[in-house]
Amino acid sequence: MAQTLRTQPPSGFRDFVGKPASERERLKALIAKVYESFGFLCLQSSALEKLEVLQGSGGQENEKLIFKILKRGEKLQQILDSDRPLEASLCDLGLRFDLTVPLARVVGEIQGQTAFPLKIFQIGPVWRAERAQKGRFREFYQCDVDIVGASSWLAEWEVIQAVSKAFKFCGIEDLNLVLNHRKLIESLAKRYSYEEHLDAFAIALDKKDKCSPEQLEKEFFNIKKASAPKDLMETLLKSDFSEEDLEGLDNGAKEELLRLKAAVESIAGYAPRVQLDLSLVRGMGYYTGCVFEFKRTGTAYSLGGGGRYDSLMSRFSKKPLAAVGCSLGFERLLLELASDHTTDFDEESLFVPQFEDVDRAKLHGILELLREEGLKVDLFPGVDKLKQQLKYASQKKIRWVLILGSSEISLGMAQLKDFKSGAEHQVRLDELQEQIKKFIL
Amino acid sequence: MAQTLRTQPPSGFRDFVGKPASERERLKALIAKVYESFGFLCLQSSALEKLEVLQGSGGQENEKLIFKILKRGEKLQQILDSDRPLEASLCDLGLRFDLTVPLARVVGEIQGQTAFPLKIFQIGPVWRAERAQKGRFREFYQCDVDIVGASSWLAEWEVIQAVSKAFKFCGIEDLNLVLNHRKLIESLAKRYSYEEHLDAFAIALDKKDKCSPEQLEKEFFNIKKASAPKDLMETLLKSDFSEEDLEGLDNGAKEELLRLKAAVESIAGYAPRVQLDLSLVRGMGYYTGCVFEFKRTGTAYSLGGGGRYDSLMSRFSKKPLAAVGCSLGFERLLLELASDHTTDFDEESLFVPQFEDVDRAKLHGILELLREEGLKVDLFPGVDKLKQQLKYASQKKIRWVLILGSSEISLGMAQLKDFKSGAEHQVRLDELQEQIKKFIL
Repeated sequence: MAQTLRTQPPSGFRDFVGKPASERERLKALIAKVYESFGFLCLQSSALEKLEVLQGSGGQENEKLIFKILKRGEKLQQILDSDRPLEASLCDLGLRFDLTVPLARVVGEIQGQTAFPLKIFQIGPVWRAERAQKGRFREFYQCDVDIVGASSWLAEWEVIQAVSKAFKFCGIEDLNLVLNHRKLIESLAKRYSYEEHLDAFAIALDKKDKCSPEQLEKEFFNIKKASAPKDLMETLLKSDFSEEDLEGLDNGAKEELLRLKAAVESIAGYAPRVQLDLSLVRGMGYYTGCVFEFKRTGTAYSLGGGGRYDSLMSRFSKKPLAAVGCSLGFERLLLELASDHTTDFDEESLFVPQFEDVDRAKLHGILELLREEGLKVDLFPGVDKLKQQLKYASQKKIRWVLILGSSEISLGMAQLKDFKSGAEHQVRLDELQEQIKKFIL
Repeated sequence: MAQTLRTQPPSGFRDFVGKPASERERLKALIAKVYESFGFLCLQSSALEKLEVLQGSGGQENEKLIFKILKRGEKLQQILDSDRPLEASLCDLGLRFDLTVPLARVVGEIQGQTAFPLKIFQIGPVWRAERAQKGRFREFYQCDVDIVGASSWLAEWEVIQAVSKAFKFCGIEDLNLVLNHRKLIESLAKRYSYEEHLDAFAIALDKKDKCSPEQLEKEFFNIKKASAPKDLMETLLKSDFSEEDLEGLDNGAKEELLRLKAAVESIAGYAPRVQLDLSLVRGMGYYTGCVFEFKRTGTAYSLGGGGRYDSLMSRFSKKPLAAVGCSLGFERLLLELASDHTTDFDEESLFVPQFEDVDRAKLHGILELLREEGLKVDLFPGVDKLKQQLKYASQKKIRWVLILGSSEISLGMAQLKDFKSGAEHQVRLDELQEQIKKFIL
């Protein structure tokens, strides 16, 4: 039996061991720190939700991808005993497929007890029963930041600030922000007489970045079985939109967008380059005002995005709640920052082999001095042959090795080996911290 | 429909908002940092496992508490279409109920590619379909640290060091370590002729802390329908065991335990007080050598514990793997550290109300200087009436408020209000960081 058990995680799931896991934790902590520095509160909601909360939530396609939890005990048995049990009756809970549905529920729960507008962020896993394929996972992290209960454009300004700063702190330097407004899309549709086909118009717009100009024309042709006006096509295919392109479109939306653009550009230190783009859609069903997306220069895929959605947060609440939110693409960000470090040495780690006859109280005291300096001090958990112990250090790609046998401890002098350069240094134990700073830090 | 939706999380689940969520993150990061400083690698395994991995894993009672995931699509439909589908055929995946089963699987997966002994830690949620009751949750965090592939007692020494240091860093000062050895329990059973009832003997031992001396005698009576020897009872009811109490029991185990006790007591800076206790059991099915438990002085409940388990890790691996592990009781630790801070001011936060006609580029620049000092600077996301904005700050229990309207910015002078003392200070904006240090930091 034991031999037949597979050791991989289930299809579409991943395990992270060592550096990749630490890197995920480092980024999560960094982003959280930035969001908290703006006064956003951290939310950690339950991983499981009642199915009635997940279903009918406006999650559209994602609702079909819920991992459902089987009922338990007597309740389950009764259903199984019946003829042809229905799927709907077998389950009561499901794994969350996004962080927006739980947020809406929690907003309903804490309304009245908490300061509003509610500035809040979440970083956590979500689960979707997608068909497994390259780059698509069934368990992945989302990272959302929201201001709920604020109708001012200053909420957009602050969300964009916080997310731009988080990207900058994570090491993304060439950040672009693409801006649009739902009312501008409506007004564009009206100008070219698509107002009766608004959804189809938006869907066609949304394809701009994913298809050729010819295909795009075909998309528009299909809406009304008629060629799209030439200047609509010309407008859409621009790579950068100017203020002039907004002339004659919804005036309130235009002013809102231009004011926001100027305010975002005025952020010192981490302002993204702001582009207007009348073809940016981002899920028409959901947003009610400004929409935006973050991209790196020269890339087509999104690093994250969001906008104003003034009805979604009201599902569990007694009164309508204006809201602005942005999702930072956590998994995408990790891919952007990842490079092939598999051959790199771990520079912050120091390996200490262990010998039989050493004074362990003294050994421990010395290692603690090194840990105080911020080094990861990896003592071998045993007294295997030195060759075997050094193989462990080399497999872990640890750069530094400190030999601390009983003679070294009694002489007050130890050997520090640099596995990268091959160099060896003698270090004085009574000046250990200074010596370590000299050679390592 | 909207009115009927409940806003609580499912029964037995929790949401954390604001301080409680940040505190969980702070502790997780602190513990991870300590474990990494010893060279332990971080492991994050998938939340879902194949049911065959979770079942028959030695998880005993916990295997009955698995949240099972319904199969999907055609596979499910076929099963539902059959007569009286069986529970076992309806599900393919389950939520992990502990971190030990995933570790064993991952060890099987990475064996051969990774340095052994494998020093590894995990901090993550697990799920159990328990009956919900006060203080028992269906989603909670576990925090495990393990050394896999090490048979030396130095592995026990290092795991105990790392966990003791983590407790100390989290603020637990009065830490006790209770030590026992599985072979001493066997040898005690033999001395009093219970060797043929070893499991029952261990179960009775394990009850020592949970029942009265009379009940304990009854437990032992029930094993063989005969009174337990008087000196066994006397031995067990001791509050502290000495070296003498181990006389005549398994000699190898005795020496191992005493050597470990001395080495743990020699740890400078965060050594726990070490107690021997022949009645400490901790799940006889699983441990094969030394067992230990962490407690605070004067409390009976465990803050965490572990021991040597030389077979559990071999389920997915081709050869037997010696291992030592310890689980730190993360939720228990949070309870220990929690106190009622609901009326406390948030001292690290500064609130900035927002006005209509302000130069937002300058405003942003000033706020960034404050954030650089480590303050959480909470700008109101709108230009509501000042009274309304100040209510927000007071609900969030923010101590400091900085008034930065356009006249303050042009005069280079702002008002800093201390909501705790009621004091007001004038601060010069051209010396803002110095002034903030003077008043706040």
